[in-house]
Amino acid sequence: MGQISDFDTAQVLVHALPYIQKYNNKTIVVKYGGNAMINEKLKDSVMTDLVLLSIVGVRVVLVHGGGPEISDMLKKIGKQSKFVNGLRYTDKETMDVVQMVLAGKVNKDLVRHLQQDGGRALGLCGLDGGMIKARKLCETGVDLGLVGDITSVDTAPIEDALGKGYIPVIATMAVGENGEVYNINADTAAARIAAALGAEKLMLLTDTRGLLRNKDDESTLIPVVNVSDVPNLIRQGIISGGMIPKVDCCVDAVRRGVNRANIIDGRDAHSILIEMFSDEGIGTMFQ
Amino acid sequence: MGQISDFDTAQVLVHALPYIQKYNNKTIVVKYGGNAMINEKLKDSVMTDLVLLSIVGVRVVLVHGGGPEISDMLKKIGKQSKFVNGLRYTDKETMDVVQMVLAGKVNKDLVRHLQQDGGRALGLCGLDGGMIKARKLCETGVDLGLVGDITSVDTAPIEDALGKGYIPVIATMAVGENGEVYNINADTAAARIAAALGAEKLMLLTDTRGLLRNKDDESTLIPVVNVSDVPNLIRQGIISGGMIPKVDCCVDAVRRGVNRANIIDGRDAHSILIEMFSDEGIGTMFQ
Amino acid sequence: MGQISDFDTAQVLVHALPYIQKYNNKTIVVKYGGNAMINEKLKDSVMTDLVLLSIVGVRVVLVHGGGPEISDMLKKIGKQSKFVNGLRYTDKETMDVVQMVLAGKVNKDLVRHLQQDGGRALGLCGLDGGMIKARKLCETGVDLGLVGDITSVDTAPIEDALGKGYIPVIATMAVGENGEVYNINADTAAARIAAALGAEKLMLLTDTRGLLRNKDDESTLIPVVNVSDVPNLIRQGIISGGMIPKVDCCVDAVRRGVNRANIIDGRDAHSILIEMFSDEGIGTMFQ
Amino acid sequence: MGQISDFDTAQVLVHALPYIQKYNNKTIVVKYGGNAMINEKLKDSVMTDLVLLSIVGVRVVLVHGGGPEISDMLKKIGKQSKFVNGLRYTDKETMDVVQMVLAGKVNKDLVRHLQQDGGRALGLCGLDGGMIKARKLCETGVDLGLVGDITSVDTAPIEDALGKGYIPVIATMAVGENGEVYNINADTAAARIAAALGAEKLMLLTDTRGLLRNKDDESTLIPVVNVSDVPNLIRQGIISGGMIPKVDCCVDAVRRGVNRANIIDGRDAHSILIEMFSDEGIGTMFQ
Amino acid sequence: MGQISDFDTAQVLVHALPYIQKYNNKTIVVKYGGNAMINEKLKDSVMTDLVLLSIVGVRVVLVHGGGPEISDMLKKIGKQSKFVNGLRYTDKETMDVVQMVLAGKVNKDLVRHLQQDGGRALGLCGLDGGMIKARKLCETGVDLGLVGDITSVDTAPIEDALGKGYIPVIATMAVGENGEVYNINADTAAARIAAALGAEKLMLLTDTRGLLRNKDDESTLIPVVNVSDVPNLIRQGIISGGMIPKVDCCVDAVRRGVNRANIIDGRDAHSILIEMFSDEGIGTMFQ
Amino acid sequence: MGQISDFDTAQVLVHALPYIQKYNNKTIVVKYGGNAMINEKLKDSVMTDLVLLSIVGVRVVLVHGGGPEISDMLKKIGKQSKFVNGLRYTDKETMDVVQMVLAGKVNKDLVRHLQQDGGRALGLCGLDGGMIKARKLCETGVDLGLVGDITSVDTAPIEDALGKGYIPVIATMAVGENGEVYNINADTAAARIAAALGAEKLMLLTDTRGLLRNKDDESTLIPVVNVSDVPNLIRQGIISGGMIPKVDCCVDAVRRGVNRANIIDGRDAHSILIEMFSDEGIGTMFQ
Repeated sequence: MGQISDFDTAQVLVHALPYIQKYNNKTIVVKYGGNAMINEKLKDSVMTDLVLLSIVGVRVVLVHGGGPEISDMLKKIGKQSKFVNGLRYTDKETMDVVQMVLAGKVNKDLVRHLQQDGGRALGLCGLDGGMIKARKLCETGVDLGLVGDITSVDTAPIEDALGKGYIPVIATMAVGENGEVYNINADTAAARIAAALGAEKLMLLTDTRGLLRNKDDESTLIPVVNVSDVPNLIRQGIISGGMIPKVDCCVDAVRRGVNRANIIDGRDAHSILIEMFSDEGIGTMFQ
Repeated sequence: MGQISDFDTAQVLVHALPYIQKYNNKTIVVKYGGNAMINEKLKDSVMTDLVLLSIVGVRVVLVHGGGPEISDMLKKIGKQSKFVNGLRYTDKETMDVVQMVLAGKVNKDLVRHLQQDGGRALGLCGLDGGMIKARKLCETGVDLGLVGDITSVDTAPIEDALGKGYIPVIATMAVGENGEVYNINADTAAARIAAALGAEKLMLLTDTRGLLRNKDDESTLIPVVNVSDVPNLIRQGIISGGMIPKVDCCVDAVRRGVNRANIIDGRDAHSILIEMFSDEGIGTMFQ
Repeated sequence: MGQISDFDTAQVLVHALPYIQKYNNKTIVVKYGGNAMINEKLKDSVMTDLVLLSIVGVRVVLVHGGGPEISDMLKKIGKQSKFVNGLRYTDKETMDVVQMVLAGKVNKDLVRHLQQDGGRALGLCGLDGGMIKARKLCETGVDLGLVGDITSVDTAPIEDALGKGYIPVIATMAVGENGEVYNINADTAAARIAAALGAEKLMLLTDTRGLLRNKDDESTLIPVVNVSDVPNLIRQGIISGGMIPKVDCCVDAVRRGVNRANIIDGRDAHSILIEMFSDEGIGTMFQ
Repeated sequence: MGQISDFDTAQVLVHALPYIQKYNNKTIVVKYGGNAMINEKLKDSVMTDLVLLSIVGVRVVLVHGGGPEISDMLKKIGKQSKFVNGLRYTDKETMDVVQMVLAGKVNKDLVRHLQQDGGRALGLCGLDGGMIKARKLCETGVDLGLVGDITSVDTAPIEDALGKGYIPVIATMAVGENGEVYNINADTAAARIAAALGAEKLMLLTDTRGLLRNKDDESTLIPVVNVSDVPNLIRQGIISGGMIPKVDCCVDAVRRGVNRANIIDGRDAHSILIEMFSDEGIGTMFQ
Repeated sequence: MGQISDFDTAQVLVHALPYIQKYNNKTIVVKYGGNAMINEKLKDSVMTDLVLLSIVGVRVVLVHGGGPEISDMLKKIGKQSKFVNGLRYTDKETMDVVQMVLAGKVNKDLVRHLQQDGGRALGLCGLDGGMIKARKLCETGVDLGLVGDITSVDTAPIEDALGKGYIPVIATMAVGENGEVYNINADTAAARIAAALGAEKLMLLTDTRGLLRNKDDESTLIPVVNVSDVPNLIRQGIISGGMIPKVDCCVDAVRRGVNRANIIDGRDAHSILIEMFSDEGIGTMFQ
Repeated sequence: MGQISDFDTAQVLVHALPYIQKYNNKTIVVKYGGNAMINEKLKDSVMTDLVLLSIVGVRVVLVHGGGPEISDMLKKIGKQSKFVNGLRYTDKETMDVVQMVLAGKVNKDLVRHLQQDGGRALGLCGLDGGMIKARKLCETGVDLGLVGDITSVDTAPIEDALGKGYIPVIATMAVGENGEVYNINADTAAARIAAALGAEKLMLLTDTRGLLRNKDDESTLIPVVNVSDVPNLIRQGIISGGMIPKVDCCVDAVRRGVNRANIIDGRDAHSILIEMFSDEGIGTMFQ
């Protein structure tokens, strides 16, 4: 971008003004994971986007997973993974590793990165202030061990951090009635947190372009989906496989009062800013 | 700029981030007048710049003059102008016209323009809340009538407006001890207001590129001047003519605690943003 | 009053106490215009009354017109007035003069006067903070040019000023959807502002004693009128001519929740204090 | 005053305006006792004066004694008074009566009276919140029993009451280091409270016109005394007898930072208002 | 307790923790009278209990009577008591004594005691800030003179004191519409104050163990009573005599929204703490 | 303690009152580690102590290490430890494990424990909000890798958490100028945090009784040490070995303004409460 002159810079800022005004003092929950998290350059771009949003007056909340780093660590300690119906069984030892990696490594590294870029960040997890409460997930009779089902979200610790000007960075463990710790799906947690905060927008950073009518043709992207059309799209096979739980989170968030939920492509640099600061946006928006 | 993609937009925003951080919650006093005020397109660009700064957390104060509109109105009412040593003698009738045009027309039009662009603005003048106090200007024995010399600035009305999120737009009349109204030079007023507010920056929008070593060669622009070098530059004739009072205002502001004072070219679109959001800045900066 | 002793002063203050208690922290909107505005001695008395009310804890809002000064200025610039059905047609040039005179001259002069008397005043107009919104007045198919019909009042700038201890002085232009400026009837504006503020009282200073059963006999003054009786009084011809729009404003204010609306005689010194600090009051009160 | 018209009322209010402005938000400590306390009509006038001052924004603190009522009660219970050097010896039984009458009867009656007149009052004594601390008075080797010498005043309970809009009414007992209760001279206490509050004015309501050059000629009243002249006036015998301790309180208050201290005649109705709302004032002012 | 080691101290504190958490920031109204008030050692224990509760975050309000001290003083002044249906007739002279003793002696002595123990206390009565309003009690056609029936409680002075960290100590006189002072039953006043404050708990300190099934057998104490069972218990004679009005106060408080009302034995040291910091509590609790 | 009656409970509370008053609203920094952290029963006792202190109004900050759990994890991943002069060399891989275990496991487990006991806790580390800044530790030319030397502590995140009623739980990593993460000694960090907060007290929970004159005789415990005597005690060999750095932390804290620093025995249940709620305290206090 070396050729963009200072004049162009000014013009771009002016161009961005209405979008900045639109999101001023609004809450945006970003779910961050996948490739955008592994590729250092993409990570840089996500961190800068979040700091920028925070500085221009958006109330940014970052919810993250930590997939590959958890697997790496389990491998390192020689922990044999047990799968049930394709889902990882979480025993106590696995849960300890999940907690360590998520809340201790991934979370605090993100905090450090945001601080380094000039933001103010605070790393929290579902245990802090008793923020996320859960019970054992009991679906279809399968025992997944310490995988939890969110029963309630107390936004006080998040609001306290936002109110003091921090970007809350949230690792998604939860605590049960007797103090046991549960592993929580990060997409689901992000949706519930967005709903509890009455967020303007939930953004799921994924490794896909969004919803495609024809999986092999990116030009068939569906830019806007009304949540009432989702069952139909599933029936038609347009929403399928790993996309189903992501879309479910978006639908859940919208149904619980979040204004917009977006599935965007975290593999593009600055996808968050592009989604927020252009009329067309990118990816697929649920409303 | 039609060709600048959304990706470039994002990159430019990221590029602007450190500057936004730098000026976040700082006070910037902009003195606005001359060509930038007459040309509608330039006016649009100045207004948008100010709204943008305000939205990203800069405390913007706009001080304005109103030269040509005052002359037009005096002509319309057939008022003969009397000049003393090249300066306009301000009798009571002239002062009334000055007040009407400045505080009623120019000021409120600027307010309306800022509001229309999505800003929040409040139009004040030196009489509101007794903000600017003055006495009759008594220089070199010449009687200029109701031309005033600022004795004090009470920033309370400005701070009140900033505190409530408004851009204060200030017409520069002043009030005397016995309630008489004085005409005040807008550059001088801007400098004194910036000093009283402990501003980070005073920006004078002018019709020149800045200070040039060689008047006919814009490539000889002096980007930075230390206020202690000003007497020297005057002796060398580099600061001369109409530039002297403008430079004096900058020197006065810096001496009274303003961090930086800039003379920039209001004939360029977005000169305010360009100055603030680039390392080199534009025009001449006094420090 | 030279003979009134200090003892009498004390007794009068004591006598005024219950009235001061009654209006303590209540909002009073005063519409000021006509003779009380031209006669300097009456102006002094109105200004002192307002400062006094403000000092003893009444939240005073001053709304003003500017009739004669507008006409004078139009005459000065040789502007031919065009009348439609007896109403002045407001073209763009006229509107500019109205704005200049109202917001720049009359408004700021009042501010200065209040400050000089020891009050704290802030001069605003309907454009400041987007306070008064209007659309083109479209009554009876007549085109009056830029005469506006109020669509909404945003009290934020007024409340901000009251909250900081200022007397807001309001010139009654309004802004349209596309930024165009409208001329607004000051009585109507005062009524709408009083309603939007949930004022205790609206006081219209006029050039009449109030409502008289017999126009030629001031002893037939009607001190109190229930707004439901107004249609009847119009039918009986007791309310007629120029009194009708004034009464309409009072009725409108009361219907929109203002507790009392008074038409009082601005030709008497201290009519505002007399109305507020005596049981009988003066003029005609609508409830 | 029946003949004073509403117009005169208004004029008087206007006349009072500068005085109201002068004392707005200032603290005035009134010491109340003597005849003004016994005569019901004078009491009415004092109470109304205080409520009025409070309503127009003066921070009023009322400090009271209770002389005659204490003597009455002591007589009722058949308590023999013992005098030492002309001063009443305060044994424990006497102290109990003093506390009962001062804090229970006189204090709460004043509170009730102020509330009845539309004021808001809170009855405190030197024990509340540990407000007044004292030790045994040890002057000239005479044992006066539980007569105390103030060691410190904690203004927190007074400021708390003023801050919530109450007139604090203060009975002047004090508490010793071991919880013992001391009888405190009310004039002295008023002076110390005024000093601790940084009051603008201390007013001692007495049964004299003020300081007279010639005791038998009220026309020889000394309106203003500089505290440095007091020793001289004592030497000349102009300050003598019971006047000496009162003047000492005034001097003490001024020395400790109170702006003005006044000895005024409580036998005149509304002497407080007359003193505050006239240029000449009444009685003698120490500065 | 000399043998209880520091370790035991720590364990006891830990044992008390859940109770402290339970009452944290809750309002507790304690009615204090009878033996607990006469016996100095018991008084010490009550005062310490209240200071402790206040320090650990309970909003404590102390309401007191003053029976024996009033009788003593009446006797001292030789006032003949007149009884109507076993109730003391309160004439003006009696009322004056009641006020003096309650608000001046008992109240301020309690304040002093609490302060001496390290608490912060403010002594108020029903007259302060117009807190308790009453009319003449008109039951069964009997004329009891100035005995009052509470018509309303304004909690502002109590909330103001609690908000500033004081323990409000309240003497229970009330003021009538015309400023007359009424004698009020302290139990009744405590119940009404607790209700007006939305208190968590009302505690009546009495000279009994609580409600006994068999008056002569303390082991038959009824620990918990549902207010709907009270009529039944009266019919059975289990609630009878002097217990009836006390129970009525408890029922009244619970009906008006107080969560729990307790009748406890003030003859035991630290009965307040024991009731609050043990599961079983002591005495009888109404819910 | 089963035999301690409710009456004793009350007495103990009363006995604790002056200590609670003494520490009310004061800041106490507790450094927690060693045996007290491994033994579950002792951990329970520490957690309860902290919740109790927090509930009775002490501002509690918990700083923790995590020694054994770090070693366990390093062993689990087969990481060979390298020692330099008896100190562990911290390479990047080790640092990652330290961060994971400290900030992810130990820290959040403590948070969960405190929450489970009814406290409100927030788990932070030196990276959150850029709280602890450090540079590479450069002592005696030895390279210890990523072991850091604290350069500054920003208490904002701690104060924010305390202000919102949380117990901040702090894992002691720090961040360098270029974003690198440093391992920080927890005792040192606790001392610096206590100093930066202007704490009343720093408490180091250790595995010793305190400072003993004769290492083998606990009866020779030195209860109080003036920091100026420390050099002498080192010379005498009374402070030696592992005690030296702990004492240095205490001295450092006191020198930087902490009122008291205590070395207490974490192997005793409730040692924190015993230290704070008894006159003699336990362990050794530096002042």
